[in-house]
Amino acid sequence: MQKKSAYHVAVMGATGAVGQEMVAILEERQFPVAQLSLFASERSAGTTLPFGGREIDIQTWTAGAFTGIDIVLGATDGAMSKKFTPHAVAAGAVVIDNSSAWRMAHDVPLVVPEVNGHAIAGHHGIIANPNCATVQLVMALKPLHDAATLRRVVVTTFQSVSGTGRNAMDELMEQTRSLLAFREVTPAVYDRQIAFNCIVNWDADPVTGDTEEETKIINETLKILELPHLGLSATTIRVPVFRSHGESVNVETENKLSVNVARSRLSAFPGVIVLDDPTRKIYPTPLDATGHDAVYIGRVREDTSIVNGLNLWIVADNLRKGAALNAIQIAEALILG
Amino acid sequence: MQKKSAYHVAVMGATGAVGQEMVAILEERQFPVAQLSLFASERSAGTTLPFGGREIDIQTWTAGAFTGIDIVLGATDGAMSKKFTPHAVAAGAVVIDNSSAWRMAHDVPLVVPEVNGHAIAGHHGIIANPNCATVQLVMALKPLHDAATLRRVVVTTFQSVSGTGRNAMDELMEQTRSLLAFREVTPAVYDRQIAFNCIVNWDADPVTGDTEEETKIINETLKILELPHLGLSATTIRVPVFRSHGESVNVETENKLSVNVARSRLSAFPGVIVLDDPTRKIYPTPLDATGHDAVYIGRVREDTSIVNGLNLWIVADNLRKGAALNAIQIAEALILG
Repeated sequence: MQKKSAYHVAVMGATGAVGQEMVAILEERQFPVAQLSLFASERSAGTTLPFGGREIDIQTWTAGAFTGIDIVLGATDGAMSKKFTPHAVAAGAVVIDNSSAWRMAHDVPLVVPEVNGHAIAGHHGIIANPNCATVQLVMALKPLHDAATLRRVVVTTFQSVSGTGRNAMDELMEQTRSLLAFREVTPAVYDRQIAFNCIVNWDADPVTGDTEEETKIINETLKILELPHLGLSATTIRVPVFRSHGESVNVETENKLSVNVARSRLSAFPGVIVLDDPTRKIYPTPLDATGHDAVYIGRVREDTSIVNGLNLWIVADNLRKGAALNAIQIAEALILG
Repeated sequence: MQKKSAYHVAVMGATGAVGQEMVAILEERQFPVAQLSLFASERSAGTTLPFGGREIDIQTWTAGAFTGIDIVLGATDGAMSKKFTPHAVAAGAVVIDNSSAWRMAHDVPLVVPEVNGHAIAGHHGIIANPNCATVQLVMALKPLHDAATLRRVVVTTFQSVSGTGRNAMDELMEQTRSLLAFREVTPAVYDRQIAFNCIVNWDADPVTGDTEEETKIINETLKILELPHLGLSATTIRVPVFRSHGESVNVETENKLSVNVARSRLSAFPGVIVLDDPTRKIYPTPLDATGHDAVYIGRVREDTSIVNGLNLWIVADNLRKGAALNAIQIAEALILG
């Protein structure tokens, strides 16, 4: 990317849960923005978002809109990304895309900067941001792999509704209100009641029964860690939490890794904070992680059911490190180049 | 136990979440009750519970209260159980106890009737009811073990607040109400906010970091399945759900077990209902299990990260099969015995 003192940045899907967070984080981290263009669907046309002390108009996107734009941050779904990304790349922009559209493409780097920032250099106009559940998982797995070589990982997620989007957050709020008022609940965003319940995100593969989310976690983790043969099993569950995901992770390593060494390796990894002291009841909850940048790890315990086993509890804000923050960290690495 | 046409039954802790469920299930299943004595702490003295078309007075327990009682159903905490149980046994009653006080005692059978009902015969006045999370786990593991021999199990729980008791259900309700009204929340029953959050139940072992709940699941499962060397790792998380627990379970077997054979073996096991069809989005949630007797199993999937791996999602009503129902099933087996 051509070096400049400041860049023309665009956010696609700017009014969504992730898009809004991207705009806020660009300002927070003082990303060198010369001009900010915000695009969203027609529903949002005419509204504005605050940035740099003024209100930026939300525009409707057209194929010609990318002229002169350096960096496009994508916060739309995959179908929309497949539409706009070729136009952005053709116009000379670099697209950092949060959708699943490009993540597994052979010539698209899939990046968590702390884990595989080196992959950014190989981009051809598109850099993919991983699934939120993947980001916090690889942030924990990378230092453990470097310390003791991963053999197998079993992960079960406790995912918040903001991972689905703003409409899912509204649905949890409305269902909760209705139930407390003894009114009936009719699910809309999810196909089952999410308030005071635990549900599964479909669509599942009809043959394996794995959900798309589970398949993403497995494929993306292997790609980011560059470990195509790592054994990884994933079960993803949606819980009635607004923001931040929890993950219960069981890890088997080739070499012995004590709890204390694991904690210190995790602590030393950039972007990870270990909150782990059973004697003082210290561990991270989704509420603790919300609004913060770090991946929080607690409950590092030896699993004595195998020779080299560890259990971990990993929590991160899925809209920040799991999505918007990670995308902007990629942009920062890109302009430092 | 001496055969009678009907029995004098007592419930200890009758006004708690599990105690009330025991009284309801005794009536529902038409257990042959000649007389029902209900005991609770002084706080509940003077109140009544409905049974058999009339209101039964709640009494305060005294050491001499067990004279003439045949079966005592214990729904108190462990400390209280240690107090009353010796008196009940000395008075000739059989105690079926839901607390953790006696579960691991060498001469006390720990029973899930469908799994190890044969163990009831060896009792010496006390039969222990397992932890709620253990009951639904062994109901799934037993048919899988019989089919393919278990090698290792990794379980992560999604536990509802009713497992902690009625005060925890009240706390989830009150915290939720407060948050929706933008009022601050001060945790009391749990040490962290449970509404819209995922938390851990302490106290943890300061050396291993395992919580009491995790240690119970491991020790109790091995005892019930009579598999002292089974590899079992447990992580227990409390979620903002009122009733019924979910469990994400990864199983490794000695012999190959296909998804279809696993489903049919689980379906054939008494007390288990398989709800599992990814193509029609069929799987059980805690809401589906609430108020029902079965252990519901869905999301039976092959785990290809190992040679013989399976994932399962197990849901059951922790107050019914996980506690009160299982205790009354033990009583039924006892009087048939």
